[in-house]
Amino acid sequence: MEMKERLQGLIEKNQLGMLRMRLEALHAPDVAELMEACTRERALLVFRLLPKERAAETFAYLPPERQQALIDAMRAGEVRQVMEHLASDDAADFLEEAPAGVVKKALDGADRERRAQLAALLRYPENSAGSLMTADFVELHDRLTVGQALDCVRKRGPRAENADVLYTIDNTRHLTGAVRLIDLVCAEQIHRVSDVRDARVVSVGTQVDQEEVAAAFRRYDVAQMPVVDSEGRLVGMITVDDVLDVIEREDTEDMEIMAAITPQEKPYLSIGPLQLAKSRIIWLLVLMISATISGRIISAFEQVLQSAVMLTAFIPMLMDTGGNCGSQASVMVTRGLALGEILPKDALRVLWKELRVSLIVGAALAAVNFARILLFEGVGAQVALVVSLSLLATVICAKCAGALLPLLAKQCRLDPAVMASPLITTLVDTASLLVYFCFAKAMLGL
Amino acid sequence: MEMKERLQGLIEKNQLGMLRMRLEALHAPDVAELMEACTRERALLVFRLLPKERAAETFAYLPPERQQALIDAMRAGEVRQVMEHLASDDAADFLEEAPAGVVKKALDGADRERRAQLAALLRYPENSAGSLMTADFVELHDRLTVGQALDCVRKRGPRAENADVLYTIDNTRHLTGAVRLIDLVCAEQIHRVSDVRDARVVSVGTQVDQEEVAAAFRRYDVAQMPVVDSEGRLVGMITVDDVLDVIEREDTEDMEIMAAITPQEKPYLSIGPLQLAKSRIIWLLVLMISATISGRIISAFEQVLQSAVMLTAFIPMLMDTGGNCGSQASVMVTRGLALGEILPKDALRVLWKELRVSLIVGAALAAVNFARILLFEGVGAQVALVVSLSLLATVICAKCAGALLPLLAKQCRLDPAVMASPLITTLVDTASLLVYFCFAKAMLGL
Repeated sequence: MEMKERLQGLIEKNQLGMLRMRLEALHAPDVAELMEACTRERALLVFRLLPKERAAETFAYLPPERQQALIDAMRAGEVRQVMEHLASDDAADFLEEAPAGVVKKALDGADRERRAQLAALLRYPENSAGSLMTADFVELHDRLTVGQALDCVRKRGPRAENADVLYTIDNTRHLTGAVRLIDLVCAEQIHRVSDVRDARVVSVGTQVDQEEVAAAFRRYDVAQMPVVDSEGRLVGMITVDDVLDVIEREDTEDMEIMAAITPQEKPYLSIGPLQLAKSRIIWLLVLMISATISGRIISAFEQVLQSAVMLTAFIPMLMDTGGNCGSQASVMVTRGLALGEILPKDALRVLWKELRVSLIVGAALAAVNFARILLFEGVGAQVALVVSLSLLATVICAKCAGALLPLLAKQCRLDPAVMASPLITTLVDTASLLVYFCFAKAMLGL
Repeated sequence: MEMKERLQGLIEKNQLGMLRMRLEALHAPDVAELMEACTRERALLVFRLLPKERAAETFAYLPPERQQALIDAMRAGEVRQVMEHLASDDAADFLEEAPAGVVKKALDGADRERRAQLAALLRYPENSAGSLMTADFVELHDRLTVGQALDCVRKRGPRAENADVLYTIDNTRHLTGAVRLIDLVCAEQIHRVSDVRDARVVSVGTQVDQEEVAAAFRRYDVAQMPVVDSEGRLVGMITVDDVLDVIEREDTEDMEIMAAITPQEKPYLSIGPLQLAKSRIIWLLVLMISATISGRIISAFEQVLQSAVMLTAFIPMLMDTGGNCGSQASVMVTRGLALGEILPKDALRVLWKELRVSLIVGAALAAVNFARILLFEGVGAQVALVVSLSLLATVICAKCAGALLPLLAKQCRLDPAVMASPLITTLVDTASLLVYFCFAKAMLGL
């Protein structure tokens, strides 16, 4: 914090020598944060003080608008240098967001090979393994000796995004295995790569969804993973830093969908109120309209309520408890599905579990509720019984619906998170009111 | 899937030679999954077919009960071998969970140094950087030449959990920087380590909370990070695979707390119904009791309802919409706080944003609602106006409360997730009913 203010001071006073020295001690994300807090002119000034490689690294951490403004403001030679040193996946991410004019300027100085590489990366569908991968990796031919392989690593490794694990290929560029750099360093120079590599390498296809990629990283505890095309040929590598971003985004998305929000790409504070309102209103409208079904049920039983208005007082408690029970079950099942801990085929096991849970929970809540009404509400035991039995039935409905709907969604290839709390709350409301009024009518003879 | 069944077949038919060969092609987590699906005797049989190092690796992926059963069933010599090859952080995790008898057996064959190392790891508080780190890393003294450093890596690297980045220390074991193995491989042998290392290394203290560790990994895009004690001396290293686990656990925990569930350590399907019921009932009770406040409000306005029972029909819609609006705001703010995108000092900015959002959303919903009531409900324009104005007020209350309560919780060093949907729903219910009845009383002259 203090550091940042001191740097801001140096920028304002134009003490460039001192500033350059101070910048050297900073990491790329910290420099990017500093630049974001400056005006565009000052950000360019800071950017120009950075050594070439660090400038490109920092560029990758800036938000798209800032990247585009920088490219816009730089000379052709500067742009070429940034683009040259930018990791290929970061370059592709930038190009994807940029308007045509900026793209043209950014690619003007690039050689043919680089253009082809970036064009290839840009062709993969969003959220696929192909769109996450980098083309800056080191591949080793099986036939090389360890000594030759190390020479190859020395030549290409420093440019690669990560050269800790090297992937091995055969004559047809098919992925044959992986070898850790440390194992190459430790092996005898005259061995063949094919003798030291591990053939048990986990890879993903270019078309695989990023959620599956994240699951594979989690399962196999790796820091990078090779990407192969549909024929098994090595085409790229995914590094774990990008997977961390995917997990953060996916989890945020799930939480937002579960709270009836259309997911947003940007952080909360940088979304305008109109955009925020848009992301929230659709579901609110849908849910508001469907909540009128509960209203219809109440209207239908107006006669019952008219003769016993005190029954109305228990409606909020019934509705809230039902909603809460439903979201507990749906959130646990949705998360279990997302992590692969629950599969659609487990539906019956889940239902059986929730049935038992809801009996225990429902009975306990109903008992407490019965006692509370008798002691504090000053109504008869019959009313207390009606409310408590309705509560038990509501809890059972809520938990079973909460558990089954996400599973059903998954089975229909919808996002299970859509079935979470708000939708289930609305459903459960209807069910609980119906049960409540029917019980009241039958047991109180209204 | 098919592979697993074929392996199960080999186990049943006791075809050990074939089984051993097949196991060689599997990764440790896959072998662990296979063992989990077997009886304990068969799991032990599979385990004994694995080469020593892979056996230890597989051991780390087994759930605690399975680990304890294996150690229990193995001979002293076998136990020693597993414990020797187990990464120190995995060994510490296992020892932490195991009962005294198993711990004694596991440590019986360990030498003094290893015991001291594990004891040190076990001393760190749960969820701290110290409890996540491994002691199996390679440190290089600044004074070494690159050639000497590579010799050191060759000797100790293969035993380390990760030797892709090596940490450098001075005479007093203080962390001075980091050097990538690839840079050592590329450097001139006669250079000093101090010439090739990068002094800008991000480290964490042993006492730092795991959420902060995860945030640092996310921010700096690293695959491992050194851990230092309070005096800045290098004591361990955290690898990104453990951070992935932390993020998964923390996100699950946040989702569970937001759905009023006491967080559970185990995956859904392996938790018994009684345990599940216990994790859910506390919050349900608290919320059920607090929902009776809404009931009290309704009782207090019984007179109003008696004279206009049709007002009851709009209660569910008002309550549901208020609850949904509140959870939208609270989930976005809670997630923003968890990711460090929102800080408590942003409270006013957040409030201002939510106020504008709620005006837009509230006005739109109220308008739709007004039209709908007039067109389909067959009640007067005055009633429609009361309901719509109450709706607007409810939306504003809900969004502001939903945004502010998590911020308040954070400020008071509570978990912001506790303030999410269910608690806010209960609060908003009370507010919306109060507003509704007051408006009705005043505007309809009841």
